Amino acid sequence: VIRVIAFDGDDTLWHNETVFSLTQQRFRELLGAHVKDAAHLDERLHERETVNLALFGYGIKGFTLSMIETAIEVTGGAVSAREIQLLIDAGKAMLQHPVELLDGVPDTLEALAPDYKLMLVTKGDLFDQESKIARSGLAGLFWRIEILTEKDVGSYGRILRRHRIAPGEFCMVGNSPRSDIAPVTALGGSAILIPYPLTWAHEADHAELGVHRVLGSISQVPLAIQEMGSR
Amino acid sequence: VIRVIAFDGDDTLWHNETVFSLTQQRFRELLGAHVKDAAHLDERLHERETVNLALFGYGIKGFTLSMIETAIEVTGGAVSAREIQLLIDAGKAMLQHPVELLDGVPDTLEALAPDYKLMLVTKGDLFDQESKIARSGLAGLFWRIEILTEKDVGSYGRILRRHRIAPGEFCMVGNSPRSDIAPVTALGGSAILIPYPLTWAHEADHAELGVHRVLGSISQVPLAIQEMGSR
Repeated sequence: VIRVIAFDGDDTLWHNETVFSLTQQRFRELLGAHVKDAAHLDERLHERETVNLALFGYGIKGFTLSMIETAIEVTGGAVSAREIQLLIDAGKAMLQHPVELLDGVPDTLEALAPDYKLMLVTKGDLFDQESKIARSGLAGLFWRIEILTEKDVGSYGRILRRHRIAPGEFCMVGNSPRSDIAPVTALGGSAILIPYPLTWAHEADHAELGVHRVLGSISQVPLAIQEMGSR
Repeated sequence: VIRVIAFDGDDTLWHNETVFSLTQQRFRELLGAHVKDAAHLDERLHERETVNLALFGYGIKGFTLSMIETAIEVTGGAVSAREIQLLIDAGKAMLQHPVELLDGVPDTLEALAPDYKLMLVTKGDLFDQESKIARSGLAGLFWRIEILTEKDVGSYGRILRRHRIAPGEFCMVGNSPRSDIAPVTALGGSAILIPYPLTWAHEADHAELGVHRVLGSISQVPLAIQEMGSR
């Protein structure tokens, strides 16, 4: 029987990808003046981010450094210091962006809190995630909060052991098939996928995710958990 | 009786400030060509870091962004994209810098491990700290590892509660009076200060640190702990 329900943060409880998208739009506008083929800017930035990921990890500061490097690369060094400062300012604006909860989030967590232990299991920059959790106003609803650099079978396994949770008692709710669903079902836990519109296109393959449910909104979680418990 | 000995990471187990110092030297050399008064560069960088701390937290990625902003500021926007790329490269070199243990570290930890539960309690960027812990080769010696964004009475108190450690059973070993000593003695725990030469000048006031010991090297910790247990 499910006893612990864990939620992902970015794009499950609060909007995140929209903030990155807005900044990438500003990045395109800024560099559009320098390069003829603005269509490839997103691709170049994504390539640079992927290369830097092993050094920077996930998060806004690393993303900002990747924007600056891409700007220098695609302009052949012609980008000005003033334009680079605008990229840093865009990164700072992201760090200060208000935390916008997805629809139904506080009501759903409050409805579940009396009957389940609620966890937050999120990935990314520690300082940034702690700041978002504080600003979300949700921290008091969680029994445990875990911030990871990578969500995989190893890190979920450590969490279950540390908090003495049997896999059969654990259900993970998130928007990422690869980070929130696959590792949890591999460990024998339950998982609920709530796709986030903007990121959905990136992660398409459901084949190796194991048994899980897909919902359209977090508001449907309480009923789904009830059904899972009585199956 | 002391049962748990916790160690700080940066400048207690491995060298950290020396890496920042080398990068700041490169920063001064690079901008020396632009500004007349290179003596003020350190000060300007430190001011920029302090302002950015609330947004960036501690860590190399934030430090790199602060170097770039300072370079733009002190040159009035005249710094070139190529020079900014050199600052990013310097930040990347810091992230890849080999983890150099202080003298006596592995021997001391191995000597203590049979009789005490050892913890690592470090502050900074999650991704960067996890990477350093992995590269240090010390991870297997620790009972628990905690990475914090801020070391204060609140965060130490949470650690003691979470791992069910009484303050009287806990001894913290570190190089920072403010982060490693004052909050721990305020909670009723023991503390051992091992000053690190380069940072020692910054934190001078011992008045409000509570009862603690000061040692010259980590190799003296086992004897000091024995004496503390039998006082």
